[in-house]
Amino acid sequence: MAFVRNAWYVAAYGREVDGAPLVRNIAGDPILFFREPGGRLAALLDVCPHRFAPLSAGTITAGTVQCGYHGLKFNASGVCTHNPHGKGAIPRTLAVRTFPVVERDDLIWLWAGDPALADEQRVPDCSFLVDPQRRTLSGYTRIASSYRLMVDNLTDLGHAQYLHGSNFATDAFGQLRRLLTVDRDRVTASLTIPDGTTPAIWKRLLDFPDQRVNMWLDTYWFAVSSLVTVIGIAPVGTPKEQNVNTKSAHLLTPETETSHHYFFSNSRNFRLDDADVDQMLLGWQQQALVAEDAPMVEAIEQRSGVANRYGLTPTMLACDEASVRVGRIIEELLAAEAAAAMAF
Amino acid sequence: MAFVRNAWYVAAYGREVDGAPLVRNIAGDPILFFREPGGRLAALLDVCPHRFAPLSAGTITAGTVQCGYHGLKFNASGVCTHNPHGKGAIPRTLAVRTFPVVERDDLIWLWAGDPALADEQRVPDCSFLVDPQRRTLSGYTRIASSYRLMVDNLTDLGHAQYLHGSNFATDAFGQLRRLLTVDRDRVTASLTIPDGTTPAIWKRLLDFPDQRVNMWLDTYWFAVSSLVTVIGIAPVGTPKEQNVNTKSAHLLTPETETSHHYFFSNSRNFRLDDADVDQMLLGWQQQALVAEDAPMVEAIEQRSGVANRYGLTPTMLACDEASVRVGRIIEELLAAEAAAAMAF
Amino acid sequence: MAFVRNAWYVAAYGREVDGAPLVRNIAGDPILFFREPGGRLAALLDVCPHRFAPLSAGTITAGTVQCGYHGLKFNASGVCTHNPHGKGAIPRTLAVRTFPVVERDDLIWLWAGDPALADEQRVPDCSFLVDPQRRTLSGYTRIASSYRLMVDNLTDLGHAQYLHGSNFATDAFGQLRRLLTVDRDRVTASLTIPDGTTPAIWKRLLDFPDQRVNMWLDTYWFAVSSLVTVIGIAPVGTPKEQNVNTKSAHLLTPETETSHHYFFSNSRNFRLDDADVDQMLLGWQQQALVAEDAPMVEAIEQRSGVANRYGLTPTMLACDEASVRVGRIIEELLAAEAAAAMAF
Repeated sequence: MAFVRNAWYVAAYGREVDGAPLVRNIAGDPILFFREPGGRLAALLDVCPHRFAPLSAGTITAGTVQCGYHGLKFNASGVCTHNPHGKGAIPRTLAVRTFPVVERDDLIWLWAGDPALADEQRVPDCSFLVDPQRRTLSGYTRIASSYRLMVDNLTDLGHAQYLHGSNFATDAFGQLRRLLTVDRDRVTASLTIPDGTTPAIWKRLLDFPDQRVNMWLDTYWFAVSSLVTVIGIAPVGTPKEQNVNTKSAHLLTPETETSHHYFFSNSRNFRLDDADVDQMLLGWQQQALVAEDAPMVEAIEQRSGVANRYGLTPTMLACDEASVRVGRIIEELLAAEAAAAMAF
Repeated sequence: MAFVRNAWYVAAYGREVDGAPLVRNIAGDPILFFREPGGRLAALLDVCPHRFAPLSAGTITAGTVQCGYHGLKFNASGVCTHNPHGKGAIPRTLAVRTFPVVERDDLIWLWAGDPALADEQRVPDCSFLVDPQRRTLSGYTRIASSYRLMVDNLTDLGHAQYLHGSNFATDAFGQLRRLLTVDRDRVTASLTIPDGTTPAIWKRLLDFPDQRVNMWLDTYWFAVSSLVTVIGIAPVGTPKEQNVNTKSAHLLTPETETSHHYFFSNSRNFRLDDADVDQMLLGWQQQALVAEDAPMVEAIEQRSGVANRYGLTPTMLACDEASVRVGRIIEELLAAEAAAAMAF
Repeated sequence: MAFVRNAWYVAAYGREVDGAPLVRNIAGDPILFFREPGGRLAALLDVCPHRFAPLSAGTITAGTVQCGYHGLKFNASGVCTHNPHGKGAIPRTLAVRTFPVVERDDLIWLWAGDPALADEQRVPDCSFLVDPQRRTLSGYTRIASSYRLMVDNLTDLGHAQYLHGSNFATDAFGQLRRLLTVDRDRVTASLTIPDGTTPAIWKRLLDFPDQRVNMWLDTYWFAVSSLVTVIGIAPVGTPKEQNVNTKSAHLLTPETETSHHYFFSNSRNFRLDDADVDQMLLGWQQQALVAEDAPMVEAIEQRSGVANRYGLTPTMLACDEASVRVGRIIEELLAAEAAAAMAF
């Protein structure tokens, strides 16, 4: 499967691996997550090296997993510590692949590639999700499409005017201005929509009077498929610094070639203790991300066969500049890994 | 996929595309049908050329479809008429493939191949379906087999003696005589069953006394997969011209390699206003076509793997002459299109 | 599909083909089983040679099957005896493949390969299943894995200590001794577990006091996938000859590459008329074989993709010696058949 493997992907929310272990498919690999007694995370390929039984079908005790088939034990480093058969010798090959993990900002990040290249500095900064000055609401859905289609979706917030129009349309959409910054493994797309009507979602969230607003939509893409979106709004005449805003994390993790995990969080700097606003934003996440975006990219995935057969290539428009640049970087990363002919 | 593309296929009954649009897969292509304000039909590949979203997920207004993802608009000719992004420029490649359609006899026929070759003269004549001197009952089912297996079925009505025996068997089956006419893209098989007992279905339909009858079964195949079957019956001694008869259209349209659409209609020249006869014939369609023919060809499709593995080839009998000739023409059409190496 | 074809496989229990016919997929082939009036079994490829309709969709009368599509009749030898079409000529190719079958010990064994090589002497001896001095309980389940994984499972009863630990664990497992005998198409693995606590299942079955026991577990593998397991138990000091025991048949038959049939029987030499013991052993079969073994090998089948991708090879331990030898013989049989380039 063609995934960029040398990258950090969100595998789970930290709270998902509590007492119970968790198995999740990441970039084609079934991975078992559990905690050692001190709380440190372990991430093992969920395949016993003896006969390929899922280790998750066994039992985990004191940071050690015992295979349910023949009783072999492995520690959090994947080393076999007990073989109850014969004289108990432990062959050198009797070890489980482990994956580097970083737990940060209530997110479990997994490095899907060569452990020697795992660099914690490259974990995208999502500290705003645990900022006590903000209020964060999180969710998850699984999407039956390549994660690439959702990266395309998120690198162009222009689609909000149409796909999410009932909540997000503004009469100033035609005045939208774009600014793009491209780094080696980061692309930033800044949209400004000046002097427009307030989108319906914001009217409800802020109890806005009928005044005109400026809006700023900044999207930060971090290779390969982590995005942060900052949406700010302020009445015309108010400086950008005084806006109210939401910062959203859109963290995509390939599961298979045609499915991915979508971890989404919305963090706001207003009405932190207002349960009604919580409900509105949770509803917005369900509608916009789960009920509008997900079915759309899944439908596009379904159309990929006929598009290929007719030899169609996407026609890029002004709104696609960021996604074109992002796509190009992903292709370069894939090509570089293919060239390196990695062993796994 | 190996379909004969330069051919007319029934895509829908005309009444299916009324106010609401319709999406149907024809020969591997998802096609969106809708009407312009004047009622003229449009048939577009259901794939937006921008990012391949299904156009059917958008909205249709005044003969124009607006993509639900990014708001592009296309008219019934597939031409983009509105791009709300950037300066609104419309790249030349921003167009949707359209398909020639003909609406006739309450049927929507679609030309699946090169539009330049579409010739309305070649649409099979099904005008008897709307003949006010006849009464027509129509239905539809989707069959999980290659359409070729159903063509085989329909070009040999001899199977009715067995598969549909409870309704159709007669003691004169052994006296059946066959006459075959083969044209370039038309095959006609005429069966005569002289001096037999009346099949059960006809006894009920006609309230026949126990007299002996002559039967005529004429099957007209039009390339690639449209068939008309005329079944006439008359007491022995009555000339053929005075028979009562049903004319049935069996219109097959490939959906995928292993599924097809089956549009069937039964048109009779007797008891036009008799609701009991309507009920009997609707019941006959459900039993013979949906409950007997469809499961049989689906079961044969399921057996195709083992048949291939054993290298089996069908053993042709006297009853298969028409289907052999039809199959040969279809193979020639496929070969000719493959040779032409068409671009789509 | 890569199956060893020149082998006897259990297709069904004899009682399954009573009045009604049976269709079952064996090594990729759908096979129709029915009885001639005298009771003799027929096994035909369930594919009519005319147009590949399943013969099982027809009717069986007096040892003859009539195809439900066009009325052809075939006898138990696969010979066409009636063609109702045209002049009734019967082409030489109008014959159905038949398979050698042997009915013995209430089992129907099918030879999946070249009929000329079928040798009834090679049918594994399961006469203990119908021994009036024993009480036999049988069952069936379908397992969604290669039969090879279940052969691995059954050739190592060491897994019982773990996967079936709640019923079968003993404190003397570490003292287990193994003895292996390898013939051309037979492997026997004899395990002895001396001087241990009585496993929970045996305590219940035998109402044993808390004394220590010797246990003997003998596994007989017959190529390709038939196994007999004899488990004996006796208090320490009692000679092996006086043990109580169960003899179990574990008869595996490939269905597809990734599924197989599992016919299991347990035959005991104690408490023959005790219905409570029947219930306990039926419960044991359901738990150990259906609820523990089957899900485990199915889970391993699911892991085969990732194991292949990482190039993992099983790490063999002391408990795997028998399965390694068995696997080697199966590979040799597959290679020999591939080399012979058999026609079917």
